[in-house]
Amino acid sequence: MMIGGGQLARMTHQASIALGQCLRVLAAGSADPAAQVSADVVIGSHDEIDDLRRAAVGTTALTFDHEGVPLHHLQTLEAEGVAVRPPSAALHFAQDKLAMRVRLAELGLPVPDFVDLSGDRTAARAALTEFGERHHWAIVLKAVRGGYDGRGVWLTDSADEALAVLDEYDGAAELMAEQKVDMRRELSAMIARSPFGQGSAWPVVETVQRRGQCAVVLAPAPGLDDATAETAQQMALRLADELGVVGVMAMELFETVDGGLVVNELAMRPHNSGHWTMDGAVTSQFEQHLRAVLDYPLGATAPRAAVTVMANILGAVEAPAMSMDERAHHLMARMPDAKIHLYGKGERPDRKIGHVNIVGAADESVEVVRERAERAAQWMSHAEWTDGWDVHG
Amino acid sequence: MMIGGGQLARMTHQASIALGQCLRVLAAGSADPAAQVSADVVIGSHDEIDDLRRAAVGTTALTFDHEGVPLHHLQTLEAEGVAVRPPSAALHFAQDKLAMRVRLAELGLPVPDFVDLSGDRTAARAALTEFGERHHWAIVLKAVRGGYDGRGVWLTDSADEALAVLDEYDGAAELMAEQKVDMRRELSAMIARSPFGQGSAWPVVETVQRRGQCAVVLAPAPGLDDATAETAQQMALRLADELGVVGVMAMELFETVDGGLVVNELAMRPHNSGHWTMDGAVTSQFEQHLRAVLDYPLGATAPRAAVTVMANILGAVEAPAMSMDERAHHLMARMPDAKIHLYGKGERPDRKIGHVNIVGAADESVEVVRERAERAAQWMSHAEWTDGWDVHG
Repeated sequence: MMIGGGQLARMTHQASIALGQCLRVLAAGSADPAAQVSADVVIGSHDEIDDLRRAAVGTTALTFDHEGVPLHHLQTLEAEGVAVRPPSAALHFAQDKLAMRVRLAELGLPVPDFVDLSGDRTAARAALTEFGERHHWAIVLKAVRGGYDGRGVWLTDSADEALAVLDEYDGAAELMAEQKVDMRRELSAMIARSPFGQGSAWPVVETVQRRGQCAVVLAPAPGLDDATAETAQQMALRLADELGVVGVMAMELFETVDGGLVVNELAMRPHNSGHWTMDGAVTSQFEQHLRAVLDYPLGATAPRAAVTVMANILGAVEAPAMSMDERAHHLMARMPDAKIHLYGKGERPDRKIGHVNIVGAADESVEVVRERAERAAQWMSHAEWTDGWDVHG
Repeated sequence: MMIGGGQLARMTHQASIALGQCLRVLAAGSADPAAQVSADVVIGSHDEIDDLRRAAVGTTALTFDHEGVPLHHLQTLEAEGVAVRPPSAALHFAQDKLAMRVRLAELGLPVPDFVDLSGDRTAARAALTEFGERHHWAIVLKAVRGGYDGRGVWLTDSADEALAVLDEYDGAAELMAEQKVDMRRELSAMIARSPFGQGSAWPVVETVQRRGQCAVVLAPAPGLDDATAETAQQMALRLADELGVVGVMAMELFETVDGGLVVNELAMRPHNSGHWTMDGAVTSQFEQHLRAVLDYPLGATAPRAAVTVMANILGAVEAPAMSMDERAHHLMARMPDAKIHLYGKGERPDRKIGHVNIVGAADESVEVVRERAERAAQWMSHAEWTDGWDVHG
């Protein structure tokens, strides 16, 4: 069963059908994306141990569509014999960015310089000042826990800005700071690991971020040399092994201006950077996650085409007058090969409500496929045809 | 909503999730393949008008996973304003083989010679004797209604055998007889048609029958010349247009020894010969059926690879000691690229309980892909590795 009723659980349920299963989901309400489509829904809260217990009864394994479940609840369930996958001991590092940085550094994996600001206010201000000056205030402040899609991340350019963030969040959230990486682009290495220890990696992809969240994924990352791609895959596989991860894991990376790699974030669940696999790879991340948590052998990760591009459909600031259904009609008429994935969510500004995959034809360049995917997603988001990805960049 | 809770409804639900929908199914029980996985299940009978009404309330359109719904019920629903797709006027020809033969002949489409045996016994015996002698008793007897997967079809080799079938079923079922076609192989032309009248066709496939039912599908049909393939597609598209079909339709064909085409059967719903599209085509037959019945523009039907082979997983005469779950483990370990689709059905001899798709790699011949697909399906059926398709042929 999966904790969380969002789109990741929805698409995992979709994949479970082919495996002869029905995914049980613990959802906050029956209108949640996964609760709309699964025959086995437990309504409850991931913060309540009794709800978690109720959802776990009789299931083979318990997994997640987000990182928000309190670790001590998972430890309780584990003590009661529930197969929590990934286990709490691994998930800890996806929940706690500071612990993750420390562990990665211990393992010799490349991380940006960082500093713990979780101590008392005076110590934290001193540590931040020293750290900021060392990096000429080219730093990023982050909440140690709970941040995603741009939340809990503050880009600051000066001592005043950085210290203001620290003052504002003092007591409300544990913070840390990181060196701002001089990067060329962002990459993601998606892998899977089974309890048996089998690992598999999809091609490394490029992720394009907008307003702090993933907007577009290019699979594979254009122009990435084989050696760097393999390094990224090996880093992710090794880390999953060291941490005992079970399921899929996304290792988000920065490719630095000099061609090196730095680890940015970890997600131990299906991830936006893996949505392209639903149409562009032999095995989707959702099927692979199920295979891993159910301790099946992993599926082939080969791409189905030379290029696949995923673009997120986002809620518009002003919801278009044209309904989502009408928008889908127009897109289908214009691009019969666009693979539309809708989540059954209400439209709110910048909320991820679906995505489009375009699997490139043999003669299509990544630029052409990307332009089509972006145009499709922009249309679905805004009901406006654009000329490509420059317009809303 | 879809009438019927079988595997076709199950896989249609799976496709509906991506379109932001949840398929409502009218199922006989909660253990039906589709009822296991859909959040919107109405338990009832397709023979009861009140159950049909209950299931149809508030839905955009009503469609089918089998041909068993009484036509007069559908006519009642249509009179009450329900969008029945395909409409009863079209579905009639998929339910009634005799009416289908007559209509096809009227339209000038190639059909085997046939004779109506639904009159009184004396007239039917006389008609059968005349027909049989004309064709040297190389004939097939068929139930006009309700036959599928080998049921309701009798291959006879002599007057005695043929007349014995007539005697046995007299009164129990309306019968007809057809000339046995001297055929090279069986083909299927899958198409879709929207209410708007848009049509689309997948590549024509070869279907391999065993014990009266589809066992293997080779997509596209190996060595079929383009002109014949296009003729088959055009025949199916034209017929769908003439009959006002909405949704997907399979036209099953015989390729005669001299290279001609003869229409065998029609199915106005997703069909076993289209399962390969789930992994082997840009748009699956299930998504396409939804697009058509919901009046969306149709999706691209291009194949994703040069060869895709589908093989059915059948219940064994003696259920293997190894569980289906264990069998899946072994298959996944041995063929990481096999796409397994399980229906959540109990195992009974020759019952279709799942299928495997193998999408061929660029360098794989149809023989190699077929051998792998057959081996995978045989394993899943019998828990015995075979050396290919000759063993259980």
